[in-house]
Amino acid sequence: MIIDVHGHVSLPPEVLAYKAQLSASLGNPDVGPPQISDERLREFNRKHIGLLDGVGTDVQLISPRPFHAWHAQRPHSVVVDWTRHVNDIIARTCALFPDRYIGMGGLPQATGEPLDTALAELTRCVQEYGFVGFLLNPDPSEGGTPVPPGLGDRYWYPLYEKLCELDLPVLVHSASCSAPRESYTLHFINEESIAIVSLLESSVFTDFPELKMVIGHGGGAIPFQIARFESWRVKNKNPERFQESMRRLWYDTCVYNAEGLDLLFKIVGPDRCAFGTELPGTGTEVDPVSGRVFDDLKPVIEQQIPWLTDDDRAAVFEHNPRRIFNLKM
Amino acid sequence: MIIDVHGHVSLPPEVLAYKAQLSASLGNPDVGPPQISDERLREFNRKHIGLLDGVGTDVQLISPRPFHAWHAQRPHSVVVDWTRHVNDIIARTCALFPDRYIGMGGLPQATGEPLDTALAELTRCVQEYGFVGFLLNPDPSEGGTPVPPGLGDRYWYPLYEKLCELDLPVLVHSASCSAPRESYTLHFINEESIAIVSLLESSVFTDFPELKMVIGHGGGAIPFQIARFESWRVKNKNPERFQESMRRLWYDTCVYNAEGLDLLFKIVGPDRCAFGTELPGTGTEVDPVSGRVFDDLKPVIEQQIPWLTDDDRAAVFEHNPRRIFNLKM
Repeated sequence: MIIDVHGHVSLPPEVLAYKAQLSASLGNPDVGPPQISDERLREFNRKHIGLLDGVGTDVQLISPRPFHAWHAQRPHSVVVDWTRHVNDIIARTCALFPDRYIGMGGLPQATGEPLDTALAELTRCVQEYGFVGFLLNPDPSEGGTPVPPGLGDRYWYPLYEKLCELDLPVLVHSASCSAPRESYTLHFINEESIAIVSLLESSVFTDFPELKMVIGHGGGAIPFQIARFESWRVKNKNPERFQESMRRLWYDTCVYNAEGLDLLFKIVGPDRCAFGTELPGTGTEVDPVSGRVFDDLKPVIEQQIPWLTDDDRAAVFEHNPRRIFNLKM
Repeated sequence: MIIDVHGHVSLPPEVLAYKAQLSASLGNPDVGPPQISDERLREFNRKHIGLLDGVGTDVQLISPRPFHAWHAQRPHSVVVDWTRHVNDIIARTCALFPDRYIGMGGLPQATGEPLDTALAELTRCVQEYGFVGFLLNPDPSEGGTPVPPGLGDRYWYPLYEKLCELDLPVLVHSASCSAPRESYTLHFINEESIAIVSLLESSVFTDFPELKMVIGHGGGAIPFQIARFESWRVKNKNPERFQESMRRLWYDTCVYNAEGLDLLFKIVGPDRCAFGTELPGTGTEVDPVSGRVFDDLKPVIEQQIPWLTDDDRAAVFEHNPRRIFNLKM
């Protein structure tokens, strides 16, 4: 079975129209979410399901599209309303395609706000919808200002406590869309690099040894640049090798070529990777060289990294996703 | 011959004491640079030269240590004074070891300032000292605020014009030391990623096809994450593959393990790479696995990347450094 842990829900335009309405009437309580029929949602998802069929993905975990997370919006109540609505749509979409989609929730985060609203929404989504994990945005600010606390900061501890209590993982995935010199697609990579270093140079995994975090996009820059952090470990007389520390985390395979995936598997081990493509997303364009979409990673993992064993591939495609997200199907 | 294009001058404590004096009396004209004898400079460099001998480096290009660039300091005249002093020390150090060091200058950059002071110092260093290139900091701000213009912005054009006129390269190397969530060593990586994407998604190399830029630390995250930018090229109907665009730039080999260097050479080609280690720097710690310092990269390139040809290695170690920096020795 092929399980893609990194997918984002396809939102029909009515949902984005609601976002635009919320945006135009910030905090105005007479703007309610749109009525969308099951038929409409089912029809709208045909394209997405067709893409999964086209690349041989059996099941995809779908979470809010980070690009639309809107975390820095004020007042914060708007973020709460918007996140709740998107989570509702995810739950309904999963219910319509129970064999193809599994729900992962978004959290109404905001730099400078306590995590209360995030924890409340997390609890609601687990109780009402049985979501198997959540996105965690390490940078819920507008263009990096105010600077959010790194994921190693105790600010996040109430969330980590709750995640451990419920045995729930997060997919660390930046969502900030307003970094003036960076496209959001590059900003994601930089934020994921910051997240890894912040986590692994903190006491988070001493305090929460059972915490399960998947780093999006194959860990940003860190698998490629690992040795400079290894050297800092020696300099700081930290006896644990950085490479060992990296294995406290999980990584998706959302790196769109064989060279990158080969490096990722070599550095962190295929036993710490879970198949993830973000299809449809940044990689959903046809590579003129291969003739396939960039995010069609199954044949890359199956054919272009010859040192992987069948067991390695089965772990990446199925067993690691099942283990991380406690999947029951 | 082994030429290391990425080295930083070793500054005796008297020089850093001068920086502290400048810092304490900002802009006070009665603080003058320290008198340091040739004997003192020669003696102080013994350790640095010993490190080069230990790893078999014949010649190193030495530039200001970015960690001490101080670009965001106000008033800007202090940055001008400090940069000038460091460049003077570099020139004197090179003159004392003419067979081992070649000078690369620093520029008194500052976000929000015109490039006039940078251009004046560049001209002075070329005329007085024959420096063969300069460091270019893509982020001369304090902790990212104010946000500097990306290297693709026309703000930098007066510098690019001068560099092309004089056939001088720059080593793109972040120097900002005050990013609240990032160690400077990680900040460098992120800034170099931003620099590459900003440059290659702009018209800089259309407007300055002869511009020579070496990206520090093997290009940050981009060689590892290249395929997502490849996909964006398709999405934006840009017919040039991102991988081809990347070959308009040069890269140092300052990635401290075989896995990273293997990927770098595969993605950009050894013909676009120049040996660079930053020794002594972040990598100057003994790797308990190899028993060598992390920045001893000569044996890694010679022995651990078997697909490289002798010509490839000669290009990386000597011919590319000579070509980029117009070295005469």
